[in-house]
Amino acid sequence: MDRYSEYRAVARALNTDAVALVPGPNFERLFGHGFHSHERPLVIVIPPEGPPAALVPNLELRSFDLLGFEGEVFDWRDQDGYDHAFAALAAHLPLQSLAVEGQVMRVFVHHALVAACPGLRIVDAEREISGVRLRKRPDEIAALERAIRISETALAEVLAQVRAGQTEKQVESLLTQALFRHGAEAHAFGPIVAAGDNSARPHAHARADYAIQPGDALLFDFGARLDGFCADITRTVFVGHADDEAQAVYDTVLRANLRGLAVTRPGATAHDVDDAVTGVLEASRYCDRIRTKTGHGLGRDVHEAPYIMRGNRQVLEPGMVFTVEPGLYRIGGFGVRIEDDVVVTEDGCRSLTGFDKTLTLVGT
Amino acid sequence: MDRYSEYRAVARALNTDAVALVPGPNFERLFGHGFHSHERPLVIVIPPEGPPAALVPNLELRSFDLLGFEGEVFDWRDQDGYDHAFAALAAHLPLQSLAVEGQVMRVFVHHALVAACPGLRIVDAEREISGVRLRKRPDEIAALERAIRISETALAEVLAQVRAGQTEKQVESLLTQALFRHGAEAHAFGPIVAAGDNSARPHAHARADYAIQPGDALLFDFGARLDGFCADITRTVFVGHADDEAQAVYDTVLRANLRGLAVTRPGATAHDVDDAVTGVLEASRYCDRIRTKTGHGLGRDVHEAPYIMRGNRQVLEPGMVFTVEPGLYRIGGFGVRIEDDVVVTEDGCRSLTGFDKTLTLVGT
Repeated sequence: MDRYSEYRAVARALNTDAVALVPGPNFERLFGHGFHSHERPLVIVIPPEGPPAALVPNLELRSFDLLGFEGEVFDWRDQDGYDHAFAALAAHLPLQSLAVEGQVMRVFVHHALVAACPGLRIVDAEREISGVRLRKRPDEIAALERAIRISETALAEVLAQVRAGQTEKQVESLLTQALFRHGAEAHAFGPIVAAGDNSARPHAHARADYAIQPGDALLFDFGARLDGFCADITRTVFVGHADDEAQAVYDTVLRANLRGLAVTRPGATAHDVDDAVTGVLEASRYCDRIRTKTGHGLGRDVHEAPYIMRGNRQVLEPGMVFTVEPGLYRIGGFGVRIEDDVVVTEDGCRSLTGFDKTLTLVGT
Repeated sequence: MDRYSEYRAVARALNTDAVALVPGPNFERLFGHGFHSHERPLVIVIPPEGPPAALVPNLELRSFDLLGFEGEVFDWRDQDGYDHAFAALAAHLPLQSLAVEGQVMRVFVHHALVAACPGLRIVDAEREISGVRLRKRPDEIAALERAIRISETALAEVLAQVRAGQTEKQVESLLTQALFRHGAEAHAFGPIVAAGDNSARPHAHARADYAIQPGDALLFDFGARLDGFCADITRTVFVGHADDEAQAVYDTVLRANLRGLAVTRPGATAHDVDDAVTGVLEASRYCDRIRTKTGHGLGRDVHEAPYIMRGNRQVLEPGMVFTVEPGLYRIGGFGVRIEDDVVVTEDGCRSLTGFDKTLTLVGT
């Protein structure tokens, strides 16, 4: 079995002449090494049989050599442009159809491929290509756990430092500093630190002009990236005190979160998990505050398959990792979200996040 | 003049029915606000006349409201998928041709647009659309300078801490911590900390298994991101001592860098600058070590127009910002790169980077 066999199988299953990979999570998994992509195309083309081929910017050739790539390499220099390299690749490996990562490959590469192979049929095979990453290996889960540990350590430190009167931006800065002090290589995504009515926006941005008030919900949604893997954790705390509504909403979201962990097991579907979790929210008096599905896969990409939503009949298998992140959001009021990262095990699931989920008051 | 006028002009110039923007640097410039993109399409369509239209994930609607968007909004929920929203958008604003950002829009959005508008001609208008960002406003240059100041402060701290025996990864971690301690919101790109033979790779990755040796070249290429703008600075120092070859190479690269600053003025072309800079390298005894063009534009994106390379007849205008980053790379030996960020002024240029460029020894 060569290292391309999973991608060759995708090409065969989709009846395409090859699979193309560009720098991104699939590329990194295959080669154990990433590349800047920017404005310079770099493409690997993997046919069902025989050696792959690559198109590589000349200035990346030395780094590319480290991959131990087995096939022909067509390089191009900035001053010449890349069209001739695509043409040479197409002459070497004639293509009438090509399966690509639709959520990673950008339009300029698509256009260059079609220009080099007139009539080329480009198939968006994001699901199939990234599907190779669905079941995480033990070393991948260990990397995820390291990223999560750093994130939790940072959160604990920040919660001890939060005070009413600080702005969301100030708290975000404390969080960022703590993450990098503890070894994060990057943010897994732009962190969310949102208080008061801003916590009701699922993808809020921290504000520099809002000082946190006593009684505010304070929502943290963030994660460290480490060794190519992304943590993604959300906790919602309250500043000083939590009123009756806040406590009742928090309790509802927590019950939904726990329900998700309880129903996650091999053989259940992504639909089943979302249905159980969202069902808890729907049965509550806060059913009009539901805004999102339950979760998404997590790994080298912070959003990847399996998407935990009704209608997704993907059957869960051991090694799959995803978030369970129910939330309730009252526009203009406040939001609560509690997010864990869970791995499917042989007989259930294990939460990789261990951070306390009891209702927590800060800044007191 | 409405805020879409520059994009309407692009649509008219390219004779397309509209310009499409997706989250990324052009979107952020227009609206002063970014979005996570991930797997959920969000597209703004701007016709030459009349109101624009947007396709927005339902869970982003509250954040989208903050943009003060004037046109029709077609939203979609995760559980329903986005095809019907693209169809509704196409019914509202019929399209036969569409100018897109080829280096930002991904293939899955391209496919969804074509599915909704059979026969749609997608034009890669990256150059024209991002061309709107070519001349930076004073507030944008001020933001860039803030990002650069943070980067330089962090570098100064790290150079004082470097010692032979540390790994590249350890030094990278020191750099990252310093950047975020001084207020960076993110890395502008994955930083490069490369010693010895790794410095000869223009886009090297820091190694955890290589301890820096006396006599090594040590190259830092990195930058803070702040308020949406990216610093990008490279300095190459030497550990303990620099031998004759190192000094001669350093001197050659520095002369090329200074030549770039000397020839940059309004009316010169990007070609002229690269020709002058690369000419210095070519005239040296190290002409076989040239691997890259002189530089690239810098702003919201760490690589953007104008690309400073021979053949690019783009005429420089006041407000354009780009890097001048000549380098010489001996494979298996060492590399030297010295990179400044410069802004074209009314009568020449001004370097936004001020970090010392004399040959520096560290760890002594």
